Amino acid sequence: MTLDDIRAAADRVRGVAVRTPLLPCPWAGPGRLWLKPENLQPVGAFKIRGARNAVARLDDGQRRRGVVAYSSGNHAQAVAYAAAEAGVDAHIVMPDTAPQVKIDNTRALGAEVVLVDTAEREAVAHRLVADHGAVLIPPFDHPDVIAGQGTAGLEIATDLPDVEVVLVPVSGGGLASGVGTAVRALCPRARVVGVEPELAADARESLRSGALVDWPVEQRARTVADGLRAQPSALTFAHLNAVLDDIVTVTEAEILAATSLLARRARLVAEPSGAAATAAWLYHSDELPPGRVVSVVSGGNVDPAVLAEALRTDAVGPVPGPGDPLSAGR
Amino acid sequence: MTLDDIRAAADRVRGVAVRTPLLPCPWAGPGRLWLKPENLQPVGAFKIRGARNAVARLDDGQRRRGVVAYSSGNHAQAVAYAAAEAGVDAHIVMPDTAPQVKIDNTRALGAEVVLVDTAEREAVAHRLVADHGAVLIPPFDHPDVIAGQGTAGLEIATDLPDVEVVLVPVSGGGLASGVGTAVRALCPRARVVGVEPELAADARESLRSGALVDWPVEQRARTVADGLRAQPSALTFAHLNAVLDDIVTVTEAEILAATSLLARRARLVAEPSGAAATAAWLYHSDELPPGRVVSVVSGGNVDPAVLAEALRTDAVGPVPGPGDPLSAGR
Repeated sequence: MTLDDIRAAADRVRGVAVRTPLLPCPWAGPGRLWLKPENLQPVGAFKIRGARNAVARLDDGQRRRGVVAYSSGNHAQAVAYAAAEAGVDAHIVMPDTAPQVKIDNTRALGAEVVLVDTAEREAVAHRLVADHGAVLIPPFDHPDVIAGQGTAGLEIATDLPDVEVVLVPVSGGGLASGVGTAVRALCPRARVVGVEPELAADARESLRSGALVDWPVEQRARTVADGLRAQPSALTFAHLNAVLDDIVTVTEAEILAATSLLARRARLVAEPSGAAATAAWLYHSDELPPGRVVSVVSGGNVDPAVLAEALRTDAVGPVPGPGDPLSAGR
Repeated sequence: MTLDDIRAAADRVRGVAVRTPLLPCPWAGPGRLWLKPENLQPVGAFKIRGARNAVARLDDGQRRRGVVAYSSGNHAQAVAYAAAEAGVDAHIVMPDTAPQVKIDNTRALGAEVVLVDTAEREAVAHRLVADHGAVLIPPFDHPDVIAGQGTAGLEIATDLPDVEVVLVPVSGGGLASGVGTAVRALCPRARVVGVEPELAADARESLRSGALVDWPVEQRARTVADGLRAQPSALTFAHLNAVLDDIVTVTEAEILAATSLLARRARLVAEPSGAAATAAWLYHSDELPPGRVVSVVSGGNVDPAVLAEALRTDAVGPVPGPGDPLSAGR
């Protein structure tokens, strides 16, 4: 995937995805940190970019036959939204254990929701593809999806051309692959650093060992950052290998403290997955290159009870030591 | 004040105020509601626009002598931020009863904070002006401030030229005057509707009676929307008279329910004042003209405990009846 693919995707997502601004953070010290608030997208996450790009690439026959996605998370709603926007039928396969609110929200976007046993999701999705001749839109393992997510990186490079560090969460790796590709092409001096929960740090291990490792799903499921439990595919791993300078890991407490901080200081409702990159800036600045940082807030679909609980944490949770970025502002 | 004044202000605020996007709200039904998230400005409120415009208009001598503001709210931090950004000294007069966090935040922005008895604020501010030859930047009663706030309206008209209703909160009236002027000039078919808390509906009474009325400050202080307790001046009243089609009032419960909704569905942390316009859309749609609505979320500096409490309200508080905008999405 090249910068040209991402530029073409930018033309396609315009008017469907929100052109999010970079938000300067005076509380972090002048000229130190900017946030890319992808939680403000219509479905609450960057996923709309990839979904829209994939839907916009369908030919007329494919549009008539519709699209299929299997996901219980932000990708499902993104595909439903992008399909409805384009007047294309969407079949979303969700586990019958998914929260009712997610099922309702996906239906409210006009999609047909197919509830199945979790173990059958993939099989049912492929049967729908076969039955309808529909196109499967995967959550990250597809060049159109990666290029779509990369439009966020294009915007970062446009808005802050002298950015020095871009922090981006890593799960399946679609966002990090796309953003990294755009930033490295346009800001060759910038470092692109992935962020993972310690409890789901498979991509970090893969990058360090030079080959994809597999963490058992039960192990990855431990993190509160439910959007960061997936693993890269061969396609995204190849991209991550090429575009990431490093991956930093964050603890569960750091993720929740960053969720609180984003609400208190940046007035953004982030889901834990969306707060992970900012947690790396807050608590792992010693592992980051120096300079102007952009942190991608990837999503905001958080259970209100989790947010209310996180808000009870004073300031930013674990008290920062001297020299910590936040100690001056306290 | 004219559209040209606002256009000139837009050139001055660029790069200091965030160019906030319009956020579509699929949960409100397709093509019905957009939010203008001014809570995402660097100091958490639209106030940065007017403060920046006023500071940018200073001549060299004035810049050397500095600026003065008296406020315990968002305006103080906006002036401190705009002054620091321009390398100008700022003296902020605050009541000695102001929350420590607001005092700390204003100091952290580089301003000199002068703590005084509430009753002496204005007198001390004017003495500072006399002593330093500094320029007083009032929170709303000044053409440069109004023109600066109007840049938010310019952006609304640019991003959604066929907007039909703009909802904007009214306190001192600077934001509503500026936004109303821009929107009426550029979108002559759009209606501009002000929103006030029932408990501080002095501007509505003034507009209806055709002359400025005065509500005792104790009465206005009853509303939880602490940013909406001020009253228009003669200058802003003249503008409101010219540009507002109506003022709608909202209850305290509606304001808090809208605060919860903005966090839950739009992933925005709004202060109660910032949620008032959206409360009008939610609960007073029968009093609004039909059509595509932009609601201005004016600020996000809310006590985290207030936000956490508001989040406990399920969905949007008082259950909407049939035909309510939200009942379909529930």
